[in-house]
Amino acid sequence: MEDASVCPRDPNAFCNVDEIDLYEQIETKIETLGPTKVESPYTNKGEIHFVKDDDRVLVHVSEKSIKRLIEEGKEPLSFEFAGPREWIYFDPSKVKAAIVTCGGLCPGINDVIRAIVMSLHFGYGVKTIFGIRYGLRGFIPKYGLPVMELTPSFVEKIHELGGTILGSSRGPQPIDVVVDTLERLNCSILFIIGGDGTFRAGAKIVDEIKKRGLKISVIAIPKTIDNDIYLVSKTFGFETAVEMACQAIRCAHTEAVGAPNCIGLVKVMGRHSGFIAAAATAALREVNFCLIPESDFDLEGENGLLNALRKRLLLRGHAVIVVAEGAGQKYVLGDKVEKDLSGNIKLGDIGIFLKERIKAYFDSLNMDCFIRYIDPSYIIRSVPANVDDRLYCANLGQNAVHAAMAGKTGMLVSLWNDRYVHIPLSSAIKKRKQLDLSSRLWLSVLESTGQSCLKN
Amino acid sequence: MEDASVCPRDPNAFCNVDEIDLYEQIETKIETLGPTKVESPYTNKGEIHFVKDDDRVLVHVSEKSIKRLIEEGKEPLSFEFAGPREWIYFDPSKVKAAIVTCGGLCPGINDVIRAIVMSLHFGYGVKTIFGIRYGLRGFIPKYGLPVMELTPSFVEKIHELGGTILGSSRGPQPIDVVVDTLERLNCSILFIIGGDGTFRAGAKIVDEIKKRGLKISVIAIPKTIDNDIYLVSKTFGFETAVEMACQAIRCAHTEAVGAPNCIGLVKVMGRHSGFIAAAATAALREVNFCLIPESDFDLEGENGLLNALRKRLLLRGHAVIVVAEGAGQKYVLGDKVEKDLSGNIKLGDIGIFLKERIKAYFDSLNMDCFIRYIDPSYIIRSVPANVDDRLYCANLGQNAVHAAMAGKTGMLVSLWNDRYVHIPLSSAIKKRKQLDLSSRLWLSVLESTGQSCLKN
Amino acid sequence: MEDASVCPRDPNAFCNVDEIDLYEQIETKIETLGPTKVESPYTNKGEIHFVKDDDRVLVHVSEKSIKRLIEEGKEPLSFEFAGPREWIYFDPSKVKAAIVTCGGLCPGINDVIRAIVMSLHFGYGVKTIFGIRYGLRGFIPKYGLPVMELTPSFVEKIHELGGTILGSSRGPQPIDVVVDTLERLNCSILFIIGGDGTFRAGAKIVDEIKKRGLKISVIAIPKTIDNDIYLVSKTFGFETAVEMACQAIRCAHTEAVGAPNCIGLVKVMGRHSGFIAAAATAALREVNFCLIPESDFDLEGENGLLNALRKRLLLRGHAVIVVAEGAGQKYVLGDKVEKDLSGNIKLGDIGIFLKERIKAYFDSLNMDCFIRYIDPSYIIRSVPANVDDRLYCANLGQNAVHAAMAGKTGMLVSLWNDRYVHIPLSSAIKKRKQLDLSSRLWLSVLESTGQSCLKN
Amino acid sequence: MEDASVCPRDPNAFCNVDEIDLYEQIETKIETLGPTKVESPYTNKGEIHFVKDDDRVLVHVSEKSIKRLIEEGKEPLSFEFAGPREWIYFDPSKVKAAIVTCGGLCPGINDVIRAIVMSLHFGYGVKTIFGIRYGLRGFIPKYGLPVMELTPSFVEKIHELGGTILGSSRGPQPIDVVVDTLERLNCSILFIIGGDGTFRAGAKIVDEIKKRGLKISVIAIPKTIDNDIYLVSKTFGFETAVEMACQAIRCAHTEAVGAPNCIGLVKVMGRHSGFIAAAATAALREVNFCLIPESDFDLEGENGLLNALRKRLLLRGHAVIVVAEGAGQKYVLGDKVEKDLSGNIKLGDIGIFLKERIKAYFDSLNMDCFIRYIDPSYIIRSVPANVDDRLYCANLGQNAVHAAMAGKTGMLVSLWNDRYVHIPLSSAIKKRKQLDLSSRLWLSVLESTGQSCLKN
Repeated sequence: MEDASVCPRDPNAFCNVDEIDLYEQIETKIETLGPTKVESPYTNKGEIHFVKDDDRVLVHVSEKSIKRLIEEGKEPLSFEFAGPREWIYFDPSKVKAAIVTCGGLCPGINDVIRAIVMSLHFGYGVKTIFGIRYGLRGFIPKYGLPVMELTPSFVEKIHELGGTILGSSRGPQPIDVVVDTLERLNCSILFIIGGDGTFRAGAKIVDEIKKRGLKISVIAIPKTIDNDIYLVSKTFGFETAVEMACQAIRCAHTEAVGAPNCIGLVKVMGRHSGFIAAAATAALREVNFCLIPESDFDLEGENGLLNALRKRLLLRGHAVIVVAEGAGQKYVLGDKVEKDLSGNIKLGDIGIFLKERIKAYFDSLNMDCFIRYIDPSYIIRSVPANVDDRLYCANLGQNAVHAAMAGKTGMLVSLWNDRYVHIPLSSAIKKRKQLDLSSRLWLSVLESTGQSCLKN
Repeated sequence: MEDASVCPRDPNAFCNVDEIDLYEQIETKIETLGPTKVESPYTNKGEIHFVKDDDRVLVHVSEKSIKRLIEEGKEPLSFEFAGPREWIYFDPSKVKAAIVTCGGLCPGINDVIRAIVMSLHFGYGVKTIFGIRYGLRGFIPKYGLPVMELTPSFVEKIHELGGTILGSSRGPQPIDVVVDTLERLNCSILFIIGGDGTFRAGAKIVDEIKKRGLKISVIAIPKTIDNDIYLVSKTFGFETAVEMACQAIRCAHTEAVGAPNCIGLVKVMGRHSGFIAAAATAALREVNFCLIPESDFDLEGENGLLNALRKRLLLRGHAVIVVAEGAGQKYVLGDKVEKDLSGNIKLGDIGIFLKERIKAYFDSLNMDCFIRYIDPSYIIRSVPANVDDRLYCANLGQNAVHAAMAGKTGMLVSLWNDRYVHIPLSSAIKKRKQLDLSSRLWLSVLESTGQSCLKN
Repeated sequence: MEDASVCPRDPNAFCNVDEIDLYEQIETKIETLGPTKVESPYTNKGEIHFVKDDDRVLVHVSEKSIKRLIEEGKEPLSFEFAGPREWIYFDPSKVKAAIVTCGGLCPGINDVIRAIVMSLHFGYGVKTIFGIRYGLRGFIPKYGLPVMELTPSFVEKIHELGGTILGSSRGPQPIDVVVDTLERLNCSILFIIGGDGTFRAGAKIVDEIKKRGLKISVIAIPKTIDNDIYLVSKTFGFETAVEMACQAIRCAHTEAVGAPNCIGLVKVMGRHSGFIAAAATAALREVNFCLIPESDFDLEGENGLLNALRKRLLLRGHAVIVVAEGAGQKYVLGDKVEKDLSGNIKLGDIGIFLKERIKAYFDSLNMDCFIRYIDPSYIIRSVPANVDDRLYCANLGQNAVHAAMAGKTGMLVSLWNDRYVHIPLSSAIKKRKQLDLSSRLWLSVLESTGQSCLKN
Repeated sequence: MEDASVCPRDPNAFCNVDEIDLYEQIETKIETLGPTKVESPYTNKGEIHFVKDDDRVLVHVSEKSIKRLIEEGKEPLSFEFAGPREWIYFDPSKVKAAIVTCGGLCPGINDVIRAIVMSLHFGYGVKTIFGIRYGLRGFIPKYGLPVMELTPSFVEKIHELGGTILGSSRGPQPIDVVVDTLERLNCSILFIIGGDGTFRAGAKIVDEIKKRGLKISVIAIPKTIDNDIYLVSKTFGFETAVEMACQAIRCAHTEAVGAPNCIGLVKVMGRHSGFIAAAATAALREVNFCLIPESDFDLEGENGLLNALRKRLLLRGHAVIVVAEGAGQKYVLGDKVEKDLSGNIKLGDIGIFLKERIKAYFDSLNMDCFIRYIDPSYIIRSVPANVDDRLYCANLGQNAVHAAMAGKTGMLVSLWNDRYVHIPLSSAIKKRKQLDLSSRLWLSVLESTGQSCLKN
């Protein structure tokens, strides 16, 4: 998967109005299972503005872009607008749905589950909803994991808890067995909460379903604490995660000023994209060095991190470093690259490496130096969502239900230009969103830290 | 000022893609003080994408709207994109700036002040920044309020505090004296943090400046805890306020279930727009009745609130009501309408009224009933901003500085379609943003509370 | 009931070592239902130090006091030490227990309930535990309130919630009907969580039980957010309440500095004893006037509150007042004194009174003055307990169970000289604990506020 | 230093009333610099109960103990009561004082500093107060660390910050140079905030002062996050630390239930005493294994931790382990024992060891197992104190000032039997406080976890 230097569209783009190239080829058409012939139960819920399929949201909102396209006689790109349809595909009384959560934890997963259940049950009258245990494993009979029955009363309070009540897991499972289980459970809809690896599995499930001629809708809700999914402005839980990261960094700062020549070092999530590190740094103004995967840095030499640290300690007596887990991998990835169950490269531990490398450096200079290393990862990702993330999760879940009931499939619900939209799975996995080093967010980081380029 | 039933654009519109009518007349042109002939100090800050004045953000992002305009041969509406310009109007070495905060408190004001000071100082090298004490009063010599000198070290930690370090006040002051003071202080830029009343004062200040032929830029940052400013997707501090409101409501719920036939009643901010009440209700799912200014309700009769409450108590033994301060004013506004210093109508106290009216009703039925009334207003608005609001405030402040340095005036910085934009003061005060009763947010409220229309 | 100027024994006594007069007549003997002939199930739980009934805690710990008693040939006073006994009265397999919560909410009630249930179930093997709904009402058939069955799985998570899962109520109920119900339920133990009014009801229940020759143990756990129970060092939930009061006061301070001549006024709980007001004031150092029931104050005159406020505003432009609800009742209690269901005098609203009186005063001086009035009472008392209160509640609940199983009755579990002890109900209701104005706590308040005596 | 199995006196002793053996030899006499001939400035502060030196607090409060002593014709042991004296030793107008903080961080240090400064300044009129930077280092000229001038306005807000504004450090410094500096600064009082290592240094400083015939008072305030100081009921910051530890453990639990066969492993502070681990475990009820230094455990064998974990996973699919850093050192301490700057043994990392050992064990069984390891140490100790700790710190600081002004020296301020008392340094360093395995606290842990003895 290509790492695209897409700038962070939570409205921090510094440069031009749009972050996606005007001539980027993006598939925007959403697949459907068939014509929508059932009247929505919402039609008797009072004054509601239903969404039509030709209600679409422009991908580009720069006036210049639109004008150029008009001049060139081209159609502007647009995404399908999310929301309830007046006519739907499924007969709610016959629908059974399943929900599965994959990959790592993230604040808000339970909120999404709750919203899906509430919306299916109270919005459409769907009574049978299965919770699949521990990710895709839950579909595989050999693990012997029973499905959970999800009811409104069961999910009523789950948003008070962090994590996922369904449990999660990583790694691929045989797609045909997954679809066997869906068939056996007689499921018409599968909601997948996960990241890009999960989207790829989702796409294969859609293919298998099509091959078998089944009518099962597969709808994804994007989940990644790294906020690195292409065509998604911001992933849920990200704000909460930044809030928690800030708490850890504040402690690191307290430690740093509490001892002579002391360095507070905090490792935060961010395998390929440094959004958490950057956002927390920009929010706090107590960080002196922010290291992210997108920005290479040297250790040695005049401009290297070590010398910069030395100068900082001489000047102020303390320093705070925030490092994303994926930063500086050139220093810690050995020759033989290992992969985890999800097929992700196992990253080297840049936190421990820096802690030891910095210690050794100051020892070699015979200079006093204390390092307080904090790795708050699990604390960041397993707390309950804050109120804003909670509302966001509720909207994602409700829109996923509307899409599914309308018979759409192979898509995810996303936020784009401040609107909820439908995006084909195939488009979302084309690239990974990364922090644009010419974006406003990164500029804020540079201004806040005062760090130089750290390159010789 | 007209109350426009604009639907809430934090992406909760339920209906069509755009919330502003396609043929709405909105002035989008930003006034400037003159040509930009000074090179920005940012040009030597490395790789930066400067914004050009013809970088504009479409007001409407519905594909249908754009197509219709094209068919009709019309130009689409657009707002100027915010951000740093390569060429600016002011010579930073000669600029003195002033900051004033007006109206009620709101989480994040200090964050905005800090961002303006930091950005002026470190971004552009502006060294003299005045803090005007207690709103527009600070400009009026008779109050004898000395200006504060704002420096980076002074503002470094102020975001940890709620409120405004400058102090605030309500009410009009003589515009000519304000401008006299600006002249005497030799100010080139005035930053105004305030709501629609403040915008109107700002517009008059701009006029007076123009009349005198002065070159002073006036830039507003929209502040209102009610989130009711037209053409602003979301005001800063709103998220934090909703978080705090949720805490109070949770306590009301605990009280309600803690005694027999007990009603928890919470009054929250919202003079004309019930966004806080609605968002908190949607986030919590513990509220049974949500009353907002936009939605009229009856007390008496079969469908009235009182009978609905009675039925709820008989069924469940407790109830939670959230009421926005501007709801049900027909019951509490007397014949003689008073106004406060800002010219706002003094609202009747719907909270106290409901508490007493409900008590009397159940007394008349000889039915046991306890009421726990919570009015958390000052606790909601005077806490420090959460991390997300903090980042938002920082961006607003930085963009205000960029706009000012480029010589723009008579405008506010806003967020629209997920982009920071410039909006003329005159446009922002045309209407008030209110909650659309056919929006998704209100539908979520109705689904969450299960409340009926409360009208006979 | 006499209001005794007992100084606050959470270790803030300023004066002599002991706060109870050496010659105070206090009954310390605990009644029992009969001899303890059953071996405790704890005997096979490993190495446990059982408590013997002659393990007693001295009431006075001043060396001087003890020496004087010895010289006088007198016995020192002591309380029975709480904890598990090797031999108990009840056969656990035959015990049914009931729990009831009375009076107002307070952080930690659910923790006590949980501890009682867990300790009965896992510690002693008692399987049947009834939760009585809504205070003593739950015993009265005419209310038709079914009892709840309390099991470990039911109470497992209740400490995460504020309030009481049983519900509570005020007011007396016919004692004979209460005991009828206990008989009908076949209860051997009744746990009462409540304040001094409840203790009095408890004492009557004990009398009725004795009169009927029943073997039912009645054990009270002292609950009052005002921390005003005699012979109890500190009541549970008090610390949490002070923490919450501090948050409200901090907001009042933010408001006060945020407007010209602005007064933040906060009313906190404290009917007869100003412990919450005093402790929050001492903890914060942002309060200028702390008004409590124990300390009379004048409004008018040179030394009165109004003139002191005027001087403060002239000097600093803002002020913060914390007032306990029972302070200054001479201003607000009318001629006809009303009582609530519990027989407590209905206090006048000193908060609203002060707000209006202060406003009128400054109006009469033609002096600008803004008042921000915060009444956070329900928010203070209905939050979940903090960790320290949680541990305290767990210990209270466990010791209540040990006492009950040993056949003790007519007593409460208390903390005295840092030990858990048994105290007869009759002793605890002799007086009310109040803040000693010569104590260290009040001195801290005076030093922190700088307030004068406020008396002419 | 002897590790004494003293049971935790925060009122959790399970066994007999007193935790100190009746015949324990404890020095209780406090040294003084000379007669108290100066009238306290407090004498004109209104109605104050001054403390006399013969106001003493009994060490034992068991009635039995006292009776036995009386029978044996012996004097009961007692500690001097803390508080202001009517007559003091120093003339406040001539006093200069110094404050130094040593060892690791702990919530509340800044509160103690603030209380000392406020009390010296406003209580006694002492105007010159030095803050010594970075522990004892700050006394040593070669480090070139300037002293800070501590004033009320400087310390006013420092309690909002975690850590210590003075900075701290570990390790011995030449005592004569320390005293040289005290002489050069013309200091009459030295306040030392630190743990047992610091107490030993303090005792040497007192000796050196005496040898030189100087009149300098040395007063210690006990600080250790482990709560392991002999003759101190509870150290400040402990409650806050437990609160933070609980947050981390809750996250570990969320992680554990979020994946199949997942173990949440949390390492908390506790070098020799497992109070934090035990208190957090007892407060939460989500922990399955609590490992502390006082309780040896086996890894292998039928009863060992590994097999117990295996059984737990088979039964429930997840587990939570809390381990104090000093637990299981037999597994991780190599042959050559290293010491840190303070002379403390460098502990092996039991957290990392367990993580790897458990992983290897389940690998060897070919059993799926995920481990989420959280080491929140720096996050636990560097947060600001909660309100209860804040009040405690204020009282400790004020009492330290009273003791110093009265000319006492070589002592620490402690809380004993719920009273503030003076304890000679020599007594406090005789032993280390540890958790008594027959105490109620440990019993609560065993009941909550259900863990067996983990010994073969």
